[in-house]
Amino acid sequence: MENRKSNFSEWYNEIIDLAGLSDKRYPVKGMNVWLPYGLKIMQHIDTIIRRAVDSRGMQEVSFPLLITRDQLSVEFEHVAGFENEVFWVTRGGKQPLEVEMALRPTSEAAMYSMFPLWIRSHSDLPLRIYQIVNVYRYETKHTRSFIRIREIHFFEAHTAHRDYEDAERQMREYIDIWNEITDALCLPYRIDRRPDWDKFPGAMYTLAFDTVMPGGRTLQIGTIHQYGENFSRNYGIVYDDERGEHHYVSQTTFGMSERLLAAVIGIHGDDQGLILPPDIAPVQFIVVPIPSDRVDTLSFARDVASRASALGYRVRVDDRDNYTPGYKYNDWEMRGVPVRIEIGEREVSEGKVTLALRSIRGRRSFPLGEMQENLRKALADVKEEIMRRAREHFLSMTVELNDMKEARGKSGLVSTFWCGSKDCADALEREAELQVLGTVENEKKRGRCVVCGQDGLLTTVGRPY
Amino acid sequence: MENRKSNFSEWYNEIIDLAGLSDKRYPVKGMNVWLPYGLKIMQHIDTIIRRAVDSRGMQEVSFPLLITRDQLSVEFEHVAGFENEVFWVTRGGKQPLEVEMALRPTSEAAMYSMFPLWIRSHSDLPLRIYQIVNVYRYETKHTRSFIRIREIHFFEAHTAHRDYEDAERQMREYIDIWNEITDALCLPYRIDRRPDWDKFPGAMYTLAFDTVMPGGRTLQIGTIHQYGENFSRNYGIVYDDERGEHHYVSQTTFGMSERLLAAVIGIHGDDQGLILPPDIAPVQFIVVPIPSDRVDTLSFARDVASRASALGYRVRVDDRDNYTPGYKYNDWEMRGVPVRIEIGEREVSEGKVTLALRSIRGRRSFPLGEMQENLRKALADVKEEIMRRAREHFLSMTVELNDMKEARGKSGLVSTFWCGSKDCADALEREAELQVLGTVENEKKRGRCVVCGQDGLLTTVGRPY
Repeated sequence: MENRKSNFSEWYNEIIDLAGLSDKRYPVKGMNVWLPYGLKIMQHIDTIIRRAVDSRGMQEVSFPLLITRDQLSVEFEHVAGFENEVFWVTRGGKQPLEVEMALRPTSEAAMYSMFPLWIRSHSDLPLRIYQIVNVYRYETKHTRSFIRIREIHFFEAHTAHRDYEDAERQMREYIDIWNEITDALCLPYRIDRRPDWDKFPGAMYTLAFDTVMPGGRTLQIGTIHQYGENFSRNYGIVYDDERGEHHYVSQTTFGMSERLLAAVIGIHGDDQGLILPPDIAPVQFIVVPIPSDRVDTLSFARDVASRASALGYRVRVDDRDNYTPGYKYNDWEMRGVPVRIEIGEREVSEGKVTLALRSIRGRRSFPLGEMQENLRKALADVKEEIMRRAREHFLSMTVELNDMKEARGKSGLVSTFWCGSKDCADALEREAELQVLGTVENEKKRGRCVVCGQDGLLTTVGRPY
Repeated sequence: MENRKSNFSEWYNEIIDLAGLSDKRYPVKGMNVWLPYGLKIMQHIDTIIRRAVDSRGMQEVSFPLLITRDQLSVEFEHVAGFENEVFWVTRGGKQPLEVEMALRPTSEAAMYSMFPLWIRSHSDLPLRIYQIVNVYRYETKHTRSFIRIREIHFFEAHTAHRDYEDAERQMREYIDIWNEITDALCLPYRIDRRPDWDKFPGAMYTLAFDTVMPGGRTLQIGTIHQYGENFSRNYGIVYDDERGEHHYVSQTTFGMSERLLAAVIGIHGDDQGLILPPDIAPVQFIVVPIPSDRVDTLSFARDVASRASALGYRVRVDDRDNYTPGYKYNDWEMRGVPVRIEIGEREVSEGKVTLALRSIRGRRSFPLGEMQENLRKALADVKEEIMRRAREHFLSMTVELNDMKEARGKSGLVSTFWCGSKDCADALEREAELQVLGTVENEKKRGRCVVCGQDGLLTTVGRPY
């Protein structure tokens, strides 16, 4: 790495190149190529997401990419919100299409035009589906890998319920799911209730999961939305209850994206490169044989690797013969492999294994026969240390704002009190370039609005990506 | 099922609906919704494909959906081949785009404009990558689920080699990979070398894997292409050899799609519905408790299921209480579950398990303690029986054509001799509506051309989907 992490923006771009995560030289702005290592990490993140939602009975589907103008025209407020950032397909072959079609920016319009065919009676509810697909947004702002792009790797869950209360239960379950996912990714976050003007178009309310990156910008890494009957009234999604009476369904959604990967890169990495939580590391253990004239370190390394692999771990032996062990150590450290297994003369002659952990100084040796417990513990220790550091980072980036005189130049996750008015939010933006991210959902506290002094709620403000 | 399989076209549409594989009521022609059960089967097919190519060192990537007109303009012959079936994105938000972009119909143009950045020296070769993505074709013909559609679930491998011989080795490896995949799916096929006018646009030659569906239409379920230097000369993909001399790379590709699922549905199914090969069945064992007043069949069923699940199988207990066991038997038979486990009073009181196999008559009982061996064997037997039937079907659909007088009305995989001329191919098409699929690659035999009587090669002709 040429850049230190304190130089965050350059560091971020450099590690994405060096580690082979994505290639942004593709000739369409904001559309990057997923390279093998980056794609694997994202697929492991997807696996964690699938496990969390599948185990709660959600079902995976896959809807078409294209949405007709008619489908989109149904719900005005929702569509208006995306009007300026949709790609339009207007021609097939050499013929203009009779009906123009949008590349999905999100799938409400695609799904909700099918829901009336699927939902007839109370026994069809709740309907709880999700998909993992790419969505497309014609971003005009500066693009940044995994953070602001035009082709976005996206998870979206959509549910329909018999009443608002059941939809609210779903909203609470989303938070459990979110905790499970962010625990695996070692990501701290705060839940902010977005102000009305910043909620998802068409939603009754939006809760956002905000985290903060080194450099002080906040990053929205997930959102859940309560739609109530806003969409079902527009798309005509109705069911018959036990007495044969018609009701509109209540709906919710949950969205997250490759920004999860951005957060993992940015929050956990260090001056040496990536640090990957064990659950998503494509290589959890890298085995490096140290060449010797006396013993066969390579076969021993392969033996160790196949034992680790039999225990269910993702392991690789670095048997490249044109690189020194030192080069290999640095290379795999840069790629964020949680644990390195070093196999030298002593390991072979004494029948033991030596580990070096990515985030913890010092080495650990133990007999070959004690691998199971030691490998398990090594990964657990790395994960704990990653989580500890991430929390420390999060805390250090969480600052208080009690007086507008101190507002200018504040960055990070800024906690303040706010009365809820657009005027005071505008003042914060105008005078200190701080945006209201919303009232803090998981810690309700009252105090005087930092702008006008009237009664307000604990609120997060910051400079979002 | 209302339709018998002898009524193939209706049967095919009906089972896709009934089993919940896909919903074609989506408002864009030829773009269907993948429903949970259908998507799961396809994902298991993808897993088999990934295993086959990953184990041979190929690397997965993911390229952007959009390809600029400039990228496409590089290679004339290739582009011309897709000109009439590409969807064009021409607007972003309310603005016309400066450069129009195509939804990928296949990814040569997307990938090969990046290859020059990745390939510089002989040490960068071979480059062997693949992706599993959707591709888009503006089909004007009648669409049919999983067979002819406008949004296609697609696998494409792309390789670059230092010379033609190494590319030829890759072509042979593709056939090994293909064998591994079709073995898991129990699909027989024939390898046909497509005539020049029917090879992939830009290829030196194309080998196609053809199978045949009930009803007699042939179905191309995979293709491999030798590009030689045709693309590398157009996209400028050059490497330096050990002596510093420049050479164009030789390239190959391998494509397959959700047509594999179409073949599985069409070839293996029967009057009762789907029959799924165990490797891709979302539910391999369905456990049906038969209600009893004397013993608790449901807890016993759950115990059996958790044992089977611990052995690594995909198992489900059908504990719905508003359906009879008979209804459940039919329902899961229709969905193609390979093995049903029936748990009645006798099973509980005698501590045993009874199996009914989807494709084999009769039942099998054994003590609970002998599950491991018996479950394994049950799946192996189902797979063997599916393969046996598929081969029988394939043979019964393979017919000979020795005389043009018998040509009209022939259907299936028709074996004949053909001299290689376009004139004779046209005559076959005109007089008998039989299309030349190509000379048989895995069985080279000479004989007199069925049209002109001159020297020819063993050739497959038929009516392809």
